[in-house]
Amino acid sequence: MRVRNRKGASDMLAAYPQYVILTPEECKGKWANIFGNDNPIHIEVGSGKGRFITGMAAQNPDINYIGIDIQMTVLSYALDRVVEAGLPNIKLLQVDGSSLTNYFAPAEIDRLYLNFSDPWPKKRHEKRRLTYKSFLDTYKEILPEKGEIHFKTDNRGLFEYSLVSFSQYGMTLNGVWLDLHASDMEGNVMTEYEEKFSNKGQVIYRVEAQF
Amino acid sequence: MRVRNRKGASDMLAAYPQYVILTPEECKGKWANIFGNDNPIHIEVGSGKGRFITGMAAQNPDINYIGIDIQMTVLSYALDRVVEAGLPNIKLLQVDGSSLTNYFAPAEIDRLYLNFSDPWPKKRHEKRRLTYKSFLDTYKEILPEKGEIHFKTDNRGLFEYSLVSFSQYGMTLNGVWLDLHASDMEGNVMTEYEEKFSNKGQVIYRVEAQF
Repeated sequence: MRVRNRKGASDMLAAYPQYVILTPEECKGKWANIFGNDNPIHIEVGSGKGRFITGMAAQNPDINYIGIDIQMTVLSYALDRVVEAGLPNIKLLQVDGSSLTNYFAPAEIDRLYLNFSDPWPKKRHEKRRLTYKSFLDTYKEILPEKGEIHFKTDNRGLFEYSLVSFSQYGMTLNGVWLDLHASDMEGNVMTEYEEKFSNKGQVIYRVEAQF
Repeated sequence: MRVRNRKGASDMLAAYPQYVILTPEECKGKWANIFGNDNPIHIEVGSGKGRFITGMAAQNPDINYIGIDIQMTVLSYALDRVVEAGLPNIKLLQVDGSSLTNYFAPAEIDRLYLNFSDPWPKKRHEKRRLTYKSFLDTYKEILPEKGEIHFKTDNRGLFEYSLVSFSQYGMTLNGVWLDLHASDMEGNVMTEYEEKFSNKGQVIYRVEAQF
């Protein structure tokens, strides 16, 4: 997600240390302390404006959520929403998806969400796709054995690619939805993007894949 | 595919022993002899009216094809097409997909095609779907190590189910197409059904899965 820079975004993030963790490398292995409980921790890599992570945190008070986005402005919009929701089970990090092992200890994270990730459609940009094998290496390290990735997108090419990438990595597909909104899946929390594009008639794809 | 009974179908099948193998259990382990060469053998389980298998046989003269269907009338329509094509690299069998190990020795078949198989949408009919694990057991036995199944369908539910079934069986997905006719895949041979339903705007799904 690309957005115009927001003036004061940096100050905003610094003003809410209860939600935005500015020194995440110091938290590695200590996330249970930071949340103050031993509940499972789910992360969203590329959390955008935060509607999904906030909705999930509201729906599941016994799970801790961490939204991760590299872009400061985007994260500041997510913060607006998090502040408004006022939930204790959500944190935000401004870090890169490829560096997650710097911030999370092995198996410290229980589930990983990817929603409407950048499709990087050109073959030469394959390595940037968040379902490329080097990213799967990273995710595997911070998830438990048999940890799961839940991924949704409206991008057909990225979804085709990702199913093959998961499978060739040795992961197992536990569920596939080729038209999520026409399915009977319950409890789906939509992202901003998802609502906008599904309203335009775009099919939403979803997969649950397990290491 | 269900069709009305065709009068004389049985006699027709018996009239073309060069195409229709009436005692396939006697051919187990001897298919190279029957074709008269050591070319790879590909089978289609549920070959319907035979457009796919005949088209593939014409396109690939160095591969031997066997079309399999349990319904005599359907097979007789496939025979019409095979007789018309007059190709040496195609045979037809009127047998059941669950009994393939009676007719083929281990690894005797190089690739297996499933096209527009009956979706059996009700959960209680899951065991009848041609991508259910008991069928995969059978296919695995007659294919080589790392043998492939190529499957296409327009049925979303069956495709979702099959991706998960292949994956949970331990198979690897080597390619997934979520809108085959919008893709750049070359050499696709359409079935009758495929042409009819894609002309109505139906998306065609395809997967290549490997044991």
